[in-house]
Order: sequence, then structure tokens, then C-alpha cells
Amino acid sequence: MNAEIIAVGSELLLGQIVNSNAQFLSQELAQIGVNVYFHTVVGDNSARLEQALIIAEARSQLIILSGGLGPTKDDLTKETVAKHLQTELVMDEDALADIESYFIKRGRTITENNKKQALIIKGSTVLPNDHGMAPGMMYSTSTHSYMLLPGPPSEIQPMFSAYGLNAISTRLNKIERIHSRVLRYFGIGEAQLETEIEDLLELQTNPTIAPLASDGEVTLRITAKHASTEEAEKLIAATEKQINDRVGQYCYGMDDTSLMQEVVKELMERDLTVASAESLTGGMFQEQLTAISGASAVFKGGVVCYSNEAKQLLLQVKAETLAEYGAVSEQCALEMAEQVRSLMGTDYGLSFTGVAGPDELEGHPVGTVFIGLASKEDGSKVVKLELGKSRQQNRVRSVKNGCSILLRMIKSKY
Amino acid sequence: MNAEIIAVGSELLLGQIVNSNAQFLSQELAQIGVNVYFHTVVGDNSARLEQALIIAEARSQLIILSGGLGPTKDDLTKETVAKHLQTELVMDEDALADIESYFIKRGRTITENNKKQALIIKGSTVLPNDHGMAPGMMYSTSTHSYMLLPGPPSEIQPMFSAYGLNAISTRLNKIERIHSRVLRYFGIGEAQLETEIEDLLELQTNPTIAPLASDGEVTLRITAKHASTEEAEKLIAATEKQINDRVGQYCYGMDDTSLMQEVVKELMERDLTVASAESLTGGMFQEQLTAISGASAVFKGGVVCYSNEAKQLLLQVKAETLAEYGAVSEQCALEMAEQVRSLMGTDYGLSFTGVAGPDELEGHPVGTVFIGLASKEDGSKVVKLELGKSRQQNRVRSVKNGCSILLRMIKSKY
Repeated sequence: MNAEIIAVGSELLLGQIVNSNAQFLSQELAQIGVNVYFHTVVGDNSARLEQALIIAEARSQLIILSGGLGPTKDDLTKETVAKHLQTELVMDEDALADIESYFIKRGRTITENNKKQALIIKGSTVLPNDHGMAPGMMYSTSTHSYMLLPGPPSEIQPMFSAYGLNAISTRLNKIERIHSRVLRYFGIGEAQLETEIEDLLELQTNPTIAPLASDGEVTLRITAKHASTEEAEKLIAATEKQINDRVGQYCYGMDDTSLMQEVVKELMERDLTVASAESLTGGMFQEQLTAISGASAVFKGGVVCYSNEAKQLLLQVKAETLAEYGAVSEQCALEMAEQVRSLMGTDYGLSFTGVAGPDELEGHPVGTVFIGLASKEDGSKVVKLELGKSRQQNRVRSVKNGCSILLRMIKSKY
Repeated sequence: MNAEIIAVGSELLLGQIVNSNAQFLSQELAQIGVNVYFHTVVGDNSARLEQALIIAEARSQLIILSGGLGPTKDDLTKETVAKHLQTELVMDEDALADIESYFIKRGRTITENNKKQALIIKGSTVLPNDHGMAPGMMYSTSTHSYMLLPGPPSEIQPMFSAYGLNAISTRLNKIERIHSRVLRYFGIGEAQLETEIEDLLELQTNPTIAPLASDGEVTLRITAKHASTEEAEKLIAATEKQINDRVGQYCYGMDDTSLMQEVVKELMERDLTVASAESLTGGMFQEQLTAISGASAVFKGGVVCYSNEAKQLLLQVKAETLAEYGAVSEQCALEMAEQVRSLMGTDYGLSFTGVAGPDELEGHPVGTVFIGLASKEDGSKVVKLELGKSRQQNRVRSVKNGCSILLRMIKSKY
């Protein structure tokens, strides 16, 4: 079964929002072995939406539409699909009751346009909306299935996971499974990695290996097709071993993980804690760390010391250090890391100081960064980075490098 | 001139990355009055890419492709477009020299597959890549223009701004200008906002008004078409006034801004400073604040006090407060805000404490948040929020509410 995702919304074509729904749906469909061959975005325009439906029908059996189910005048997905399929919209009483109770729970009065959201395509299966008002629906003909989902990510994601996947699986006669594993690398460039495994990339057809570079990381996606899950896993494992025999020292994890998730996992497993003192990263390390549920087991707190005063006030960094070496220095990074570690009484202290940009600082070019790592038992170290010109990229890459440095220290000890 | 954006990359169809290039290009094209009617995503597959090209040619005059210009085996955009246009690829000596110097600068040896990146479609105009290796290009026939751009956002964005926009403007005989303004609202729901201005939404055709809700904010995009910029601006201004006569108290800014950018702007204009103490938000307020270039004028530092110990250690929150009221309380939020303000000696202190989730805390349900705001001259206040179930959304919305509370206090005084 081939699928196509059609996102409906002029705000996408104007670039006001990014098409995160297509990304989410693609990830979910890959999991159940449905090939997604196209994404389309079309505006809030009935004629162009119908044109997109006709094109999609010629190349895909499953057509998933997101957006345009809401209460407003430019929400016209249901109306257009119904017209195209020569059927009509009917009021779904359960959905209407849900919408009414949604308003009652929030102590608000239902407006007339909100009732429109309870209309569904006649003969479709309703996908309840547990996080909003507009229900989704799936309508099938002998050749095609059409799934209509709401636009807001906070609604489409729980709806698709709870109801959409099931509806598609039921429709699938057999599940043609694709199995894939993503290997994640940090500290090696895409071209260098590819050169190291060039022969494998050339020769392999099952599994295939696809490299992808993004934000200083490189991933390799190994994809096998096989009727048997067990056999597919064996194929993948053999390829993984071949690759990592060559570049395994750069591999930090697989599948749905990140450097920060690995940090939290490693610390948690060993009952260790970390504190951070952030200058150029402004809290990004701590924000990303606490974005992970359960981070409180490994993190109690830290400081954002964006100025020299804050470095002295919050961390007692010595005035002489700042005067003699400056804030962008190995010495300052070292003191920041050691002070925050000792202040918070943690196993590790990680510090970030440097020049995010756009202007140079203390005579250092934009992209100069010092990362300090203090450990309770194994002394301290500082790593100097020379990053690029982009302020945001310098902050992001500093945090990733900090994670990588910490991971290596933990793994070298335990 | 109608445009279509075709992003090439199987990683998009697998959901490994989001199509941020389409968003970026759409924003840029809207600025110069080019209508984008469709986005398409297609995998690294020559046959399907050609199929997408044929469909695009039937409905758009400008076809912009992103991705697939790199050195690897699955990069085949140039090859496919050249074949489709019945032309060939030729080595561009300038691009090759750029690639060689890129390697020399980094002290690395050029690999054979990297040279392939200097191939361009015969007869096309080269768009230099100042941030990577693969050059872009634009090729025009009597009816269509094809622009090929690299996939990585760090390359496509500077390339398009520096060279791509110019190439398109040159191609446009006249500029059919769309003028638009985005009004940004916080603290009012989409349906309520729309009900307030229902008559305007129904009646208006030039300008049109399009509402969009996202992450607790609502935006209204006012779009006017007119040959004269001045006349278009008048139309927009009149509509803006009609709208904000009704809901102006919720409007915090317009066009390309954010609550945080408004916070920095307001503080900067009045020479004021802020410090923050963050518990559930884990540094997100400070991270977003310091993401803005120039933030150091209004922000010196703050703390992330993710545990009770950290609240006591870093902020001297009283043990009795924590024992009697708990960390998730009005009293704790107040002390955090006042302590961080006085510690850092700033005009304002903003604190965040609450239950991000997934588990409840101290008997408070997920989504309970207290935001404290201390000011040097006008006393302190605490606002309680009851947010939803999503950990990340609770963190994001807490920060937005914090910004909004701070903005209102600044504006009410000055």
C-alpha cells in the first residue's frame, strides 16, 4: 500500500508554519510498513485541493489529509473531499456531544461555527478527537482510503496514534514490512563517513544504507525488506556490524535518541548527577536536559551566567581570572565547571563559554567556544572548539559537543 | 508567476527531518509577490522525481527544487532535471575551485565523490554556495524556470537570500505584489477571536483576513493585492484598525516578532533588566531570551533551580516556605522571583514553578504552574495557570505566559 500525505493550509504555503504533520505521519506509517512516496501541500482552496486529490489517486491507495477541519470559513477539506467523492456531509451526534462538553468543561459558550466541526462524510468511520473539537474520519472506496485529520499537532498526533493507525491496519490485507534502524554519529563529517564505508554503500541492496547529515550529526539509515521480522533484523545487524567495525568510535546511539537522551540515560544508569554553568548557550543545555522526562534524577539545577558579573556573583569565578584571561578562555571555562560542580555537589560540572556571535568578543572570533568538564573523581578538562558564523548554530553545536564530551568521559570510566 | 517547491529526499518521506526548506522558501517568495500554490516532497528516486516535475510544469512557471545536490549516490536531482530537459551536465570550473579551496581551508583531502558536486546543468546560471560545497543553479526555458538548491538549511538559506531571490526577480517581468501584515495575539482563543471579528472575515475580499492558531497564540494575516505599495498599505492599515478596535488588548506585535522579541525590545528601549529563576521550564526562558542577538543588554544571568535543594542553595528560598506550601505554590514563585531579582540586582525577576508532567507533584495536577514577577519599583505578583497534559507544551506555554505578564507590567508602567 502506497500512501500520500496532503496537508491543507495556506499558512503552510506562506511559510508561517512548517509541515510537522507530514513528518509525524511519515514516521508512523514507516513503522507499519506503509510506503510514503509523496507529500503535498495545498492551500485553503477547493479547486486546487480537488486537483491534488486527483493526482494523489493516480499514484497512491491511501490518502491522508491534515488540516482544514476547523470551524472557520477557510476550513474546507471535508466539503471538498465529500464533493469529489459525490457524497455528502452529515451531522455526527457523538461528535457534536463531544464538542458541547468541550465547551462546558471550559466554562465557555459554544459558538455556531463550532458546531460545523461535528459534520462528517456520510459513511465514514469517525476518529474521535480527545484533545480538541474537530473529529477525524476515514472513508474507503473499493480502490482508495481517505483519512481526514485535524491540523494542530496537539490534536493530530494523539488521534492518529490512538485511532488512525488501527483504521489503516484493518484496511491493510497484509502488512508489507520495511524494517529500519538509524545509527547516529557525532564528530565525523558526512563525506568522511561515506568514504569509510563507500564499498558498502555501493554494493548493498538489501539492506540499503542511506546517509544524512544535519546540525553537525550524521545518521545512517539501514533499511531491510523481508517478510520475517527476525530475518530482517539479522540482515540489519550484520550490516550494522560491518559499518561500526570501521566507524563505531563515532556512533553514539541508534534509532529515536539524541546526544542529550544518551547523557540522561548514562547518568541515570550509573546514578550520577550533573550541573551546568552556561554563558553563550544561555540555558540551552539545561533546557534540553529538562525537556527529557525523568531528568530530575540526574539534574538538580545550575546557573546561566551570561555576564562577567554573573560569573562572579553566581559562581565566584575569580576576578583575576576574568581580568587576566577573559571570560572566553580555558581558565574561565575550567573555573565555571569546577565551581558549579562543587556548588551543586554533583558528580560532573559542565560549562560553556564563548562567542556565539554576531560580534567578536575579547578579540576572539565568532565561533570560539570553551567547554569545561569537571568531575568529582577524575579531575577536569577543557575542550576548545572553533565553530562557524551562525549564532544559533554555535549555541546548538556547543551543547552537542558538551554532551559528547560528557558521554565520552562517563563511558571511559565505567 | 506561480511557484511550486519540490523538496527531494527520502529522509523527508520517512519523517526523519521536517521540510523546513519549503517553509523558508515560501516566506521568501511571499515577500516578492510570488504565489506558492503547492509544495511537493518526493524521495531519492529519479522516476518519481520526473513525475513530480511533469505535474509541477502543468501548474507552475517557477519550480524550485531543494536537496539532492550532494556528493552521495542517492543525490540525483541535477541528473534527473537535466535528463528531463534533454540537456546535459557540465563541470563548472569555478565551483570546482570553490570545492577544492573548501577542503584545503579545512586541511582535508578532497574525495572523488565531492568533485561531482561541481557539475551543473549546461546553460544554467550558477548560484554560489558560500556555506558548503554544492552550488545551486537556475535554468530557464521560454515557459518555465527551474531553480536547484542544496538541502541543508545552513546552505540553502544564505544561497537563496544572496543569489536566488535576485535570479527570480530578474526573471519576473513585473512584480505582482502581494502585501501582507501579520498581527499577533496572546491570551485569546482562535474561535473567540474569530467570533469577535466574524463580520470582517465574511465581508472582506481585499484585504483578506486569515486566522491561524498555534501554541497558544493566534495570528491574523491581512493580505492586500494592489499595484501600488502605498495604496496596499492604506488598505491594510484600515483593516488593522477595525480589528484592533475590538481585540487590540490581546495584540502584542506584528509581522516577524515573538513574545520574547517584544520583551527584549521593550526592556532595551527603557534600559531595564530582567533575571529569571526557572524550575519546570528548566532554562527555556533564558535560552529563548539569549537566542536573541543583543540580549546581553537586558540580561546578565539567572538560575535553573530544578529541585528544592537548588531553590534553597541558589536562591535562599526559605525551608519553611517549601515545607509549608511546597515548591508548586504562589509563595514559592514569589520568593523565587524576588530572590533572583535581588540577587542579580535587576529591574525585574521572573520565576517559573509548576508541574510539567507526566506525573503530578505535591498533589497538584499536571499543568499547574505559578509564575512570579518581582519588580524593583512596583512590588510583586503571582499568576496561576492551569495548562494541559503535555510536558513540552506546558513548558512552552509557561514561558509565553511569563513573557506576556512581563510585557503587560512594563507597558502599564511606561
